[in-house]
Amino acid sequence: MSIAANNPQLVSWVEVPPGSDFPIQNLPFGIFKTRYLGAVAGVAIGNHVLDLVYLHENGFLDGLGLPAGIFNQRYLNNFIALGRKTTRAVRNRISELLSAEVAALQQNVAARELALIPMQEVQMLLPVQISNYTDFYSSEEHATNVGSMFRDPKNALLPNWKHLPVGYHGRASSIVVSGTNLHRPKGQIKLPDSEMPVFCPTQKLDFELELAFITSKSNALGTSITTTEAEDYIFGFVLFNDWSARDIQQWEYVPLGPFLGKNFGSTISPWIVTMDALEPFRVRGPEQFPHVLPYLAYEGDKSFDINLEVLIEPQEGEATTVCRTNAKYLYWNVNQQLAHHTVNGCNIQVGDLYASGTISGPSPGSFGSLLELGWNGQRPLQLANGQHRKFLEDGDTVIIKGYAERNGIRVGFGTCAGKILPAL
Amino acid sequence: MSIAANNPQLVSWVEVPPGSDFPIQNLPFGIFKTRYLGAVAGVAIGNHVLDLVYLHENGFLDGLGLPAGIFNQRYLNNFIALGRKTTRAVRNRISELLSAEVAALQQNVAARELALIPMQEVQMLLPVQISNYTDFYSSEEHATNVGSMFRDPKNALLPNWKHLPVGYHGRASSIVVSGTNLHRPKGQIKLPDSEMPVFCPTQKLDFELELAFITSKSNALGTSITTTEAEDYIFGFVLFNDWSARDIQQWEYVPLGPFLGKNFGSTISPWIVTMDALEPFRVRGPEQFPHVLPYLAYEGDKSFDINLEVLIEPQEGEATTVCRTNAKYLYWNVNQQLAHHTVNGCNIQVGDLYASGTISGPSPGSFGSLLELGWNGQRPLQLANGQHRKFLEDGDTVIIKGYAERNGIRVGFGTCAGKILPAL
Repeated sequence: MSIAANNPQLVSWVEVPPGSDFPIQNLPFGIFKTRYLGAVAGVAIGNHVLDLVYLHENGFLDGLGLPAGIFNQRYLNNFIALGRKTTRAVRNRISELLSAEVAALQQNVAARELALIPMQEVQMLLPVQISNYTDFYSSEEHATNVGSMFRDPKNALLPNWKHLPVGYHGRASSIVVSGTNLHRPKGQIKLPDSEMPVFCPTQKLDFELELAFITSKSNALGTSITTTEAEDYIFGFVLFNDWSARDIQQWEYVPLGPFLGKNFGSTISPWIVTMDALEPFRVRGPEQFPHVLPYLAYEGDKSFDINLEVLIEPQEGEATTVCRTNAKYLYWNVNQQLAHHTVNGCNIQVGDLYASGTISGPSPGSFGSLLELGWNGQRPLQLANGQHRKFLEDGDTVIIKGYAERNGIRVGFGTCAGKILPAL
Repeated sequence: MSIAANNPQLVSWVEVPPGSDFPIQNLPFGIFKTRYLGAVAGVAIGNHVLDLVYLHENGFLDGLGLPAGIFNQRYLNNFIALGRKTTRAVRNRISELLSAEVAALQQNVAARELALIPMQEVQMLLPVQISNYTDFYSSEEHATNVGSMFRDPKNALLPNWKHLPVGYHGRASSIVVSGTNLHRPKGQIKLPDSEMPVFCPTQKLDFELELAFITSKSNALGTSITTTEAEDYIFGFVLFNDWSARDIQQWEYVPLGPFLGKNFGSTISPWIVTMDALEPFRVRGPEQFPHVLPYLAYEGDKSFDINLEVLIEPQEGEATTVCRTNAKYLYWNVNQQLAHHTVNGCNIQVGDLYASGTISGPSPGSFGSLLELGWNGQRPLQLANGQHRKFLEDGDTVIIKGYAERNGIRVGFGTCAGKILPAL
């Protein structure tokens, strides 16, 4: 697929500092507010946010068939629902307007001043109203680690795991945007040496490093989406932290799955990096054996080479990187996830969020949760300030970062961060 | 609690046939359309629907502080969000207007003609936009039956079951209103004598008889709702059929719970019977032992005496009642369900739906699913037409009915029906 805005030769007249996640080849969408503006849609470029309401109202987006007021909304859902053909045309137009070779916005000093807002002056908001949220479990290494710890190292993967992308429904209401602090959740915990459960703050608070995609199209109840059609339904991706209280989860989860151990909060990064912007970073996925059933078969490169890392910043001291991994390790790809989710006729809606499940790589430093990194508390991690962590402590901020890079072009996600406050 | 509209002495000037679910003491809310009207809010009375848009626009609801256009909407969410004090005042006013002792509407022949629409002329629509859907597992008899069949009859209940109301997140997008037909879902099934899964239409399609409540108020993320406060958050109840594909479910559900075995569709009854209308039918709940943790303790009668039944109507032949049970058998009540759901800070939203889980009673004829009634296919049910059922067949319509009755007053739910069409 050739997408004009992905041209690696493009340079913007807006300054893009080295190492920025937001060059002209990215152009992710988000919702922001400032001292002067309510919630409006914007695009990130370098250290600035481009105000799409201003551009639209002043004719810079004419001819694209956009409804009036489409960017002057609390959420991006209605924009996303216009479909990938339209949202791609908008991204291409913005790419033109920001290109050093195009004069229209560049040479209009008054418009530039009004349309470009320094990032430090904006507050990012939750970009979509999340209609439904599903969490998959698509990393073989993660499922193997968890199975080894809690079941049997010799049969760590359950029999269904290599035949279908295991998933479950999560809680949409408690998904928050990066920068939202969360209180340590309380709940029922069953200690091994006690007959009765106790009620207390979780003692095993964890993060889970995930990537999530947001859908732009709905299918009718009863119909299915093939692996080939799946990409038409995906607008873009965000980083995702599926915070988990391991002790609450362990006591509650049989037989119907995770519930209060997860639904106290999940954090997403504010900028939706479009599927289009990630096209240049496709790679071949892992071999799948045994062979999958025909409805899960796919052709082409459906995995993404996206570097991911997790940092823990304690209340006192600097942040320590505790995990470096890559999205390409995921066993099941997004095409297979959507095809599986709908093969029974389940209907997808615009603004749904589908998370990958914890992304772990093959080496111990690439595991995507503290549960795995510290092997359920047996091997505490050392932070740069000398402290150790079995699980998260009050005051810890967890920061997830991610970017793809090829031929000197870096397409990044910004950060997905949240701080743990003491239990209420 | 004394609620004027519940007075058993009240009689309506609108004819209410004997055995009707909708006497003046009920007044459930729904969304309907006709040949002439788009989606508007209405209240059921006897065999008629009262058009709330007409009443509101013509001054019959003046003085209640209702926003303009509140009933002229596709969903009841904004009305419900006004809170129980306001929605109760509306129900009380409608009760007055329909009372044989009040002239205002009764004596206004033109208004009567326009405001009252025969039920056979309306089509009922999904009454709320469902924000989040949680399914509990609150029937001890159901959990015991399932545990006996699939695990160990001597330890049928898992260790957590009597300590917390087990629940899991379901799929909101595929909840449909009564009368919506559903195609038999396809999916992966692992037959016992095969090493590999196969892909085919489910061979074990089932219903689950449930009751569900709809919330009217939100709490901030991080805060909790006590068992005492819970009722402020509940607008009313509907019947709920949690269709289940047992073979798909059995293969997929470890370790993260039900997914495609459930999310192809769930059916609700169209009329929301208010919490207020059910006040006279409160009864004491089952003894809970071992004693629950303090956050789950409650005072007063929090269970409801609601008769429930399930009928199967085959393509050829009349309907057969296959289950008669009662909501009072539920071990965990709605106050405990909401308190548990939020004890970790999870936030409730307006228009959430919380289902009870399958309601089974103590006797075999009171089991709320075919899985239990036919003991996983071992004891096929005989229908009135002579056919037998281990599980549902194409062309079967499942009809759930429910009503509470005391002192000659019957407050009912209408029906929750859906027909199974062949797999696509």
